[in-house]
Amino acid sequence: MAKVRVHNLFVSSDGYAAGDYVTLEKPIGDAVALFSRFDGRVIHGVDTVVDPVTVDRAMFSMWGQGIGAEIMGRRKFGPQSGPWPDDGWQGWWGDEPPFLTPVFILTHYPRESIQFENGTSFHFVDAAPGQALSMAIQAADGLDVRIGGGPATVREFLEADLIDFLHVVIVPVVLGTGVRLWEGLSGAEQRFTVESIGSVSGLTHQLWNRKPRE
Amino acid sequence: MAKVRVHNLFVSSDGYAAGDYVTLEKPIGDAVALFSRFDGRVIHGVDTVVDPVTVDRAMFSMWGQGIGAEIMGRRKFGPQSGPWPDDGWQGWWGDEPPFLTPVFILTHYPRESIQFENGTSFHFVDAAPGQALSMAIQAADGLDVRIGGGPATVREFLEADLIDFLHVVIVPVVLGTGVRLWEGLSGAEQRFTVESIGSVSGLTHQLWNRKPRE
Repeated sequence: MAKVRVHNLFVSSDGYAAGDYVTLEKPIGDAVALFSRFDGRVIHGVDTVVDPVTVDRAMFSMWGQGIGAEIMGRRKFGPQSGPWPDDGWQGWWGDEPPFLTPVFILTHYPRESIQFENGTSFHFVDAAPGQALSMAIQAADGLDVRIGGGPATVREFLEADLIDFLHVVIVPVVLGTGVRLWEGLSGAEQRFTVESIGSVSGLTHQLWNRKPRE
Repeated sequence: MAKVRVHNLFVSSDGYAAGDYVTLEKPIGDAVALFSRFDGRVIHGVDTVVDPVTVDRAMFSMWGQGIGAEIMGRRKFGPQSGPWPDDGWQGWWGDEPPFLTPVFILTHYPRESIQFENGTSFHFVDAAPGQALSMAIQAADGLDVRIGGGPATVREFLEADLIDFLHVVIVPVVLGTGVRLWEGLSGAEQRFTVESIGSVSGLTHQLWNRKPRE
């Protein structure tokens, strides 16, 4: 049974998981401080890290393990809104997007899929969370599905109670503005068991595991 | 540059990392209490775990990441000593050893290699740690080398200062007897930086990273 997982979701001390004002020049809006501790080199495992293996990196390295497909919101793919301009945009990641699996991008404006040589492919679907998840589970072929963000997308899947595992990383910065992860989710913690650890870097890692469904 | 890594090395509160009296019936001797917390299903990544993703499991899951070869002591392979009896012994693991890579077994009694369909192969070499490591690095083909234990073997590699990374798991049990990991290694901590976390299970995870060599 495929699990639906969220990894490396950075949240500020005041609960923001992304900045406002995403533009071409500022992929994460005003929330740069939120991601300054993240070492993206470890997403496919600790082997790609030349530097010491820290607790943070060990935790980050779960990102790619056993994942067969990702679902992301349109805002993670690009800063555009409305109908797609004819600008050749293929996402923020250049010729080698790090996903290595099919990726389903939620948008009200479907367009042609994009295929990369490294196994990543982008598919644009106008679908509700449950529908998109069915597609992703099929594409994942027995592996797990990652909900890749941004936070509004994660929140939608949490609202629909479709998340089995959520790795939240609390960053000790105060943003004051941005996209709130937990908005409208009062009491969500009752559906999960939560284990937390702090690391010497100041980050707190929370592992939210969905309680067994009745 | 390949790193030399040790993962999931369980040590009791009194410093023992294996039991005495290993026999066919008791692969880990008298140290059963030491391994009772270990969930071996996660060694190839958190994806193979149906149960919740705990901090312990996240840490254990580094075991197989980016590993291209293992070196183990003879005692980890089997309970025999001296010349190999003609008993068809192929290790403790049956037809599907979990290693999935070449494994070099240190023994004064070389014998023919054993190849399994899942990618695991056992090679028996009469070699000093440095020599065995050269072979393993070549076999690993750019990936890292894991020193798989037992503790006497890890200790030999620590004495020769060949370890780059060591994940020690301190288990709150008192064994009173067994194989001491740190015997003869006074001051070894000066060569490493060490980061520790405790988890709710009572385990303590220590990440020992070799300081940059001058």
